[in-house]
Amino acid sequence: MTDPATTDGPDDYVRTSIGSATPDTITVAGLDLPSEVMGRLSLTELAYLLLVGREPTNGERRLLDAVLVSLADHGLTPSALSARLTFTGAPEAPQAAVAAGLLGAGSVFLGPAGDTAEFLADALAGRTGAALSDDQLREIARDAVAARVAQGERVPGLGHPVHRDTDPRTPRLYALADEEGVLGPHLRLLRFVADAVGEGRPRPLPINGAGAAGAVLVDLGIPPTSARGFVLIARTAGLVAQLAEEARHPIGRKVWLELEERAQPLDD
Amino acid sequence: MTDPATTDGPDDYVRTSIGSATPDTITVAGLDLPSEVMGRLSLTELAYLLLVGREPTNGERRLLDAVLVSLADHGLTPSALSARLTFTGAPEAPQAAVAAGLLGAGSVFLGPAGDTAEFLADALAGRTGAALSDDQLREIARDAVAARVAQGERVPGLGHPVHRDTDPRTPRLYALADEEGVLGPHLRLLRFVADAVGEGRPRPLPINGAGAAGAVLVDLGIPPTSARGFVLIARTAGLVAQLAEEARHPIGRKVWLELEERAQPLDD
Amino acid sequence: MTDPATTDGPDDYVRTSIGSATPDTITVAGLDLPSEVMGRLSLTELAYLLLVGREPTNGERRLLDAVLVSLADHGLTPSALSARLTFTGAPEAPQAAVAAGLLGAGSVFLGPAGDTAEFLADALAGRTGAALSDDQLREIARDAVAARVAQGERVPGLGHPVHRDTDPRTPRLYALADEEGVLGPHLRLLRFVADAVGEGRPRPLPINGAGAAGAVLVDLGIPPTSARGFVLIARTAGLVAQLAEEARHPIGRKVWLELEERAQPLDD
Amino acid sequence: MTDPATTDGPDDYVRTSIGSATPDTITVAGLDLPSEVMGRLSLTELAYLLLVGREPTNGERRLLDAVLVSLADHGLTPSALSARLTFTGAPEAPQAAVAAGLLGAGSVFLGPAGDTAEFLADALAGRTGAALSDDQLREIARDAVAARVAQGERVPGLGHPVHRDTDPRTPRLYALADEEGVLGPHLRLLRFVADAVGEGRPRPLPINGAGAAGAVLVDLGIPPTSARGFVLIARTAGLVAQLAEEARHPIGRKVWLELEERAQPLDD
Repeated sequence: MTDPATTDGPDDYVRTSIGSATPDTITVAGLDLPSEVMGRLSLTELAYLLLVGREPTNGERRLLDAVLVSLADHGLTPSALSARLTFTGAPEAPQAAVAAGLLGAGSVFLGPAGDTAEFLADALAGRTGAALSDDQLREIARDAVAARVAQGERVPGLGHPVHRDTDPRTPRLYALADEEGVLGPHLRLLRFVADAVGEGRPRPLPINGAGAAGAVLVDLGIPPTSARGFVLIARTAGLVAQLAEEARHPIGRKVWLELEERAQPLDD
Repeated sequence: MTDPATTDGPDDYVRTSIGSATPDTITVAGLDLPSEVMGRLSLTELAYLLLVGREPTNGERRLLDAVLVSLADHGLTPSALSARLTFTGAPEAPQAAVAAGLLGAGSVFLGPAGDTAEFLADALAGRTGAALSDDQLREIARDAVAARVAQGERVPGLGHPVHRDTDPRTPRLYALADEEGVLGPHLRLLRFVADAVGEGRPRPLPINGAGAAGAVLVDLGIPPTSARGFVLIARTAGLVAQLAEEARHPIGRKVWLELEERAQPLDD
Repeated sequence: MTDPATTDGPDDYVRTSIGSATPDTITVAGLDLPSEVMGRLSLTELAYLLLVGREPTNGERRLLDAVLVSLADHGLTPSALSARLTFTGAPEAPQAAVAAGLLGAGSVFLGPAGDTAEFLADALAGRTGAALSDDQLREIARDAVAARVAQGERVPGLGHPVHRDTDPRTPRLYALADEEGVLGPHLRLLRFVADAVGEGRPRPLPINGAGAAGAVLVDLGIPPTSARGFVLIARTAGLVAQLAEEARHPIGRKVWLELEERAQPLDD
Repeated sequence: MTDPATTDGPDDYVRTSIGSATPDTITVAGLDLPSEVMGRLSLTELAYLLLVGREPTNGERRLLDAVLVSLADHGLTPSALSARLTFTGAPEAPQAAVAAGLLGAGSVFLGPAGDTAEFLADALAGRTGAALSDDQLREIARDAVAARVAQGERVPGLGHPVHRDTDPRTPRLYALADEEGVLGPHLRLLRFVADAVGEGRPRPLPINGAGAAGAVLVDLGIPPTSARGFVLIARTAGLVAQLAEEARHPIGRKVWLELEERAQPLDD
């Protein structure tokens, strides 16, 4: 039987500090929503505050928004197509179409942001990040890459099916981080990781936008395990825009009818 | 057989202006992402640009962010609980937990933003919004309310299961809109709608935060049918924060075990 | 404050009769799972038992399975494509791909099963279904159709984007129902509904498979509001098969790359 | 530019053998749906046919249904609760509530079926399964367990948060498999795996129902990578039943209100 002493009292496990509401107040991140948040903080700033525990500086906010806008959309991705197709079958439930689009934001396309964040954070765990020299980072990079290879796993944050030489988002993120003085050890390490992976290859693998984004987020103090979730905020915005366009100029139904017409038997 | 003339050529139906990518460039909202968006626009501004076709003014951006932060979180909502419970069963797929949380953002809790936006927009359709007097709006409100009642449908944007007298977000949104000079006809109409519904009731129903948000979004030019999607961006941010906390201080598993222990047979 | 008298005790609201588990037992539908269900009931029979409260007869089970197999798959539907595309982005979470596919099973494609079930059940509410003559059903059909038209709503269960003359599933369902002696008033009414809608049209609209399925389910005693959920069981099976094939012969990635290549700007 | 030779012609990549439709026919698994499937195959049989390429024998079908009914429901699981909570927020979209419930069927609760299937299949890869003696299987089990431990990973298919001594589904699945003559090498190996893990532990870890189910499915010829998807069919049935009950006797809203009332600040 449930011990009543552990429910509905000071020992109750139901605890949260994200937000709460009473009949007359709404609190979020410990602040009164109407008077201390609305009209003062942007959504980006609130998201950071909830994940890190403090408000970002102006420079940090600029980088956060740069990360978010860089990952909001990338054309007719599998994620965007899935959202549009779901909308085709269920136009009465737009949240279902957005959810379907987010479900495809997994290990292949958006996952690299969080995977890279965690990879870099693990590599630097226990090291005094800021004081590391280039040589030290180079060595850490080599070790981390060797460990991934030994486990038969890919190194995250590198390569892109479309941007084969340079992902145009990456140099811009590095430049902005430098400009705002937040180019930290994770971003620096990621460059050496790319070098280490590139050794012995005819062509280096570029740092992709999601990987660079993951490094930025960790350098800004966002917990590595929250990086992948953070970029979902951006993807939601992109999907909402895709669906608004789909409602005006539908292509989902035409894609379906075209592919079903073209479909031929598969000889397995 | 598919007519090749309609695929892969100037008559191809596969058209989008949200974004695109080539090996060396990424375009979003018609702008070059790295040089014209990253470091200049916030996610909120990009979302607005994609939905409306122009960048928001400073005042408009302030209202947009006020709407978004006001709807990001509301404590342990069914949406937040669903996300936490999904994370309990599938911690390896955070996008699944966020998606599960968004799926509950339907007609009851977040839907009112879009429902109210569409309701107000329909009521003002074909009227020169800005030039309407209070008396005209009062009459439009009465007619719109009467029509909903005649169809046996509720008037959206009013009432809240927790905030029974005043939803604290509402007066703040109206004050900010007034301050920034964007208190438009939809926001004004909503007040008269609340009055019309309140007539003959012992207590008026308050305008809820989602309803006021919907009115703000339409007054700012966001297509009414995109309002519900727009607020999903905010909800994603709140859910990401809920999941970050769940990872540190899990309650999902405890909720499950407590409820399963308490469960008794149902005599149907 | 929560009244402890209403939690964890005889007045606790946490009640369910679907199933429960103790350390040594598992109960489902009031039966001991290992000894009374496993090896005796099929999944179809258990689903029916949970929704209706008794086990189906052999004839009823044959119709239930006929409904389910008829709605499991329909080629590369938007639902199947969405699942495959989600799998392309998140191959590590198959439940996400299946979920994405189900999300598109809304009002357009699978919804008609439940919509038709509810429509027919509403039309026959309070009438002694079995004793109704053809003439009575014809009149009920005309009234129900007229009411939908007056509300500006479509009559569910008719028409199909591919099967424009006859949906091949429909005559088979009627024949099987007749064979098994379960061709009830809802199936009979649906024919008169199709006739009523067809009056004054150059060509009649065929009863579609989902609509016929909805009528079968209600005639078999499944609550109308559960009909749409019931057919989701079938769609899950179809999606699992689509994903197994996608894993062997991926087309999701190629669809994405082809459409992104073909995409051209949209002049809005 | 897309090479037209690779689209809409014999080299087109759009190939599937799950199903297709023309205006007058529907094909699934290579059979004519109305005449060869409806009224003859159950959903379970069709699902197997689609995944394996042949119809199951009666004994195989009995085991398949035993697996499915054993995993359809387990009381108020996080999955069931998530579905009910989603329904609370979005009652207009039942497919969203089912999808939300499935999303939680991940690595913790339902994943073990597929994880165990893949683990056992990998261990027996390239061995002539049927001819293996107990001693050979014992050795294979020890090696496979040792390899998992060396990688710091858990052995799947063992243990359960509720059934700490014996999962009641397991002995029943083994008995049924034996009775039907399909107790194959994967089921046999799983016993030795449990023994190997149990060595050196004060108490053995029981084979859980999902793990035994995974072994059954592989012994029946279902591709290991499709096992997790297959059990989702069962979970969909259970969730549909949970939602039908929620519609009659809602607990989602009460859970929400109770937990929000009990929530206290979290000191992080």
